[in-house]
Amino acid sequence: MSNKGITSRSEDYSKWYNELVIKAGLAEHSAVRGCMVIKPYGFAIWENMKSVLDAKFKETGHVNAAFPLLIPKSFLSKEAAHVDGFAKECAVVTHYRLKNDPDGNGIIVDPDAKLEEELIIRPTSETIIWNTYKDWIQSYRDLPILINQWANVVRWEMRTRLFLRTAEFFWQEGHTAHETKDEAIVETKMILKLYADFMRNYIGVDVVTGVKSESERFAGAEDTYTTEGMMQDGKALQMGTSHFLGQNFAKAFDCKFQTREGGLELVWATSWGVSTRMMGALVMAHSDDEGLVLPPKLAPIHVVCVPIVNKKSMDRKPEMDAIVEKLKEGLGADVKFKYDDDDQKRPGFKFAEYELKGVPIRVAIGPRDMDKGVLEIARRDEKTKELIPIDDAVEYIQKLLVEIQDNLLQRSRNYRLEHTTNVDTFDEFKKVLEEKGGFIYAHWDGTEETEDKIKELTKATIRCIPTDNPLEEGVCVYSGNPSTQRVLFAKAY
Amino acid sequence: MSNKGITSRSEDYSKWYNELVIKAGLAEHSAVRGCMVIKPYGFAIWENMKSVLDAKFKETGHVNAAFPLLIPKSFLSKEAAHVDGFAKECAVVTHYRLKNDPDGNGIIVDPDAKLEEELIIRPTSETIIWNTYKDWIQSYRDLPILINQWANVVRWEMRTRLFLRTAEFFWQEGHTAHETKDEAIVETKMILKLYADFMRNYIGVDVVTGVKSESERFAGAEDTYTTEGMMQDGKALQMGTSHFLGQNFAKAFDCKFQTREGGLELVWATSWGVSTRMMGALVMAHSDDEGLVLPPKLAPIHVVCVPIVNKKSMDRKPEMDAIVEKLKEGLGADVKFKYDDDDQKRPGFKFAEYELKGVPIRVAIGPRDMDKGVLEIARRDEKTKELIPIDDAVEYIQKLLVEIQDNLLQRSRNYRLEHTTNVDTFDEFKKVLEEKGGFIYAHWDGTEETEDKIKELTKATIRCIPTDNPLEEGVCVYSGNPSTQRVLFAKAY
Repeated sequence: MSNKGITSRSEDYSKWYNELVIKAGLAEHSAVRGCMVIKPYGFAIWENMKSVLDAKFKETGHVNAAFPLLIPKSFLSKEAAHVDGFAKECAVVTHYRLKNDPDGNGIIVDPDAKLEEELIIRPTSETIIWNTYKDWIQSYRDLPILINQWANVVRWEMRTRLFLRTAEFFWQEGHTAHETKDEAIVETKMILKLYADFMRNYIGVDVVTGVKSESERFAGAEDTYTTEGMMQDGKALQMGTSHFLGQNFAKAFDCKFQTREGGLELVWATSWGVSTRMMGALVMAHSDDEGLVLPPKLAPIHVVCVPIVNKKSMDRKPEMDAIVEKLKEGLGADVKFKYDDDDQKRPGFKFAEYELKGVPIRVAIGPRDMDKGVLEIARRDEKTKELIPIDDAVEYIQKLLVEIQDNLLQRSRNYRLEHTTNVDTFDEFKKVLEEKGGFIYAHWDGTEETEDKIKELTKATIRCIPTDNPLEEGVCVYSGNPSTQRVLFAKAY
Repeated sequence: MSNKGITSRSEDYSKWYNELVIKAGLAEHSAVRGCMVIKPYGFAIWENMKSVLDAKFKETGHVNAAFPLLIPKSFLSKEAAHVDGFAKECAVVTHYRLKNDPDGNGIIVDPDAKLEEELIIRPTSETIIWNTYKDWIQSYRDLPILINQWANVVRWEMRTRLFLRTAEFFWQEGHTAHETKDEAIVETKMILKLYADFMRNYIGVDVVTGVKSESERFAGAEDTYTTEGMMQDGKALQMGTSHFLGQNFAKAFDCKFQTREGGLELVWATSWGVSTRMMGALVMAHSDDEGLVLPPKLAPIHVVCVPIVNKKSMDRKPEMDAIVEKLKEGLGADVKFKYDDDDQKRPGFKFAEYELKGVPIRVAIGPRDMDKGVLEIARRDEKTKELIPIDDAVEYIQKLLVEIQDNLLQRSRNYRLEHTTNVDTFDEFKKVLEEKGGFIYAHWDGTEETEDKIKELTKATIRCIPTDNPLEEGVCVYSGNPSTQRVLFAKAY
């Protein structure tokens, strides 16, 4: 256990995660089973994620809109595969009124206010959106439709974990409609790339991209593209998916358009989403036993400055304030700077607090440093510190923010490469999974049967068939049947 | 009926509104009763509103967070007044699973998946938030808490209208916790002022602010402050409210704190919200029979430029493009500029389209204008146009945007003042309400009985007791009992 009262990663990784999310003030459980409260510090990180992604979606031609929270029950059964995937653990609205209990037992559900058709809180919005698009699309002139919505969705999960799996979660869901199959596939892959860039260059997780095997596809998709990040326990976390839906939803909702040639064709579709799950990835990929480690591009505070003063040196405070003010000004508005000169808390307490919160850079200023014309600048990621001349501090900090961002991605990449193993036999597969963990590249015969068997025996699943996967003759690690490429296996969240 | 196929305001104001919201592409009804789809153009305006307000909340020290969508039924009955106000027309979640009907009739609600306690989709979040705050607050050091959330809420309305009254709507709800009564009241009033400034200076509606009578208060509040806008039919629209909640919710959820003096006291609270209802106000306050009229500060497109070309003048197009490009550049990134040179649509069609969409400024450029070195610049609000030398266009447009914004507020103010009447007898009250409509300032004896009677007889309600209301001796228009001030009556949405 660390000095923050957090279980260490080596002791119990899962417990470390749960405790850290709560102690760092990111989120907590609510009174409603499976629903979380995202606290202000956690929400500020999520807002940063949203604002970057929203700008990227808009740059690529998408617009935002809002579709209903509630979906008629019958809609879920319109697309054959979708019904099996989503018409299961859903929050079901059956009544629309409460009333005072005539027997005086508080308020009860009014039995007279039963809905004719039950409504489901959206677990995802393909059905209600395609039921809407069918009225918007008559001709190829109405295409493409490139819409995104930021929304809350509910999936009634039995075992929940903050950010990783909650009944209510927050996400964006893009739903696009196209004239041609090719255009829809280009969109699906463009979004996959956009997601991967975001995960690498903002969250600092060096994801592997690829396409899912049939059994791991989104219910209703023809192809599901995925971004898989490796956490510090070697497990994979699916961080975002982009689906080529073919004409499945257009068929289910009878959405046809007049083509340029005057014919009538079903519309081609994609959908894609990332969620508050990325918050879980952010925590698990970088943080340590002392607390969060946040990538500068998503951190609510970039630099915290703590003055080291006591009663004796209190007369030097105005001088310190002036130096700090100048530093803050020099850094400009883009660097979120916090000067914590609360005299009710000791510097050591503050150091621990900001370490827990993952603030990328900590600046300490004390009388002795001042006399020497230097500041102590500490970086959260490597837990190192240096004395820097006051006049060089602005440039040093600006460079350090970039360096920390790069370093996190580099560490994530190195960790992934160190924990990636090519295996050729099933014994080796099991041994690596047991002893080393991480990502395993192995030959697979392409059948669902083998996939299921491997999952049953090892709990590892096919995370994806990686993008630009090299072709290579081989034999399936499980069945011994011929295979043309290795696929990525891992235990996953 | 206008040339856009929209019923005119004088014919049927209510129909005009409904048709305009749909034809202008702001929103439409969904397949779920009472729930709307906010379309991209409407959502872009809502996003602009959100972004301005969010910045203002943050400037005044607030942070965002997220609380659950679902609330245990029992929470609603904890605060005595709140239960009467909100534990009524609610969407009630009773089950958490669907399954395939064993009789083959599609999917049905699984009777084995009944929740022990029903959950309500939040109609507002005071209860779930105060149930959370009680764990966050132990001491005065934990105060104040200044949190806002942007959320969707559901109130099962029987008669719905797009934006004005929908089952699901979008809003922000601020929930703050304070040490002292005074501090909470200061917060309540500060937010009222922030709302009023936003409504005047962004939406361009010259609202009247004031405090609600007891019967019109938020269920659970000690005082409800309101912003009331006048629509073009003379009716009032409540555009946002800020509530001083006293210690009511702290008492209901047993939320006490250790005071500076070492005692134990109940926490003081406020809550405040504005919603997508403001979109309705925006439409109804300014638009005309030809379409929307949008205030520049909230318009998704500020300036649309339409080239006037035909086959004969097509060779001049590159020259036009160059002029337009220069104009766009000169206006800078803050002016959202659209150059619509789609050659599949005639200029007249485009003029009508952008008029319908309420784009504040339209620029037309044709060969003859070009030869004279001028552009035709038309303003949407006054439907006037002028020929402006190309070299002066940037400055002219920048000034015109400010002028249009000011003009809308000025028109709203003039309209309100012209439709505000002081009345001294009940006959006059009824006559003015019937013949002129608008806001009526009349003496009231302060009793709920009189208020109810006036409402029953005239459908007018007390909108508020205006801020800084002058004291004035008088007698109640209805009862003849003594009164010390006039209050604001109107029919309302």
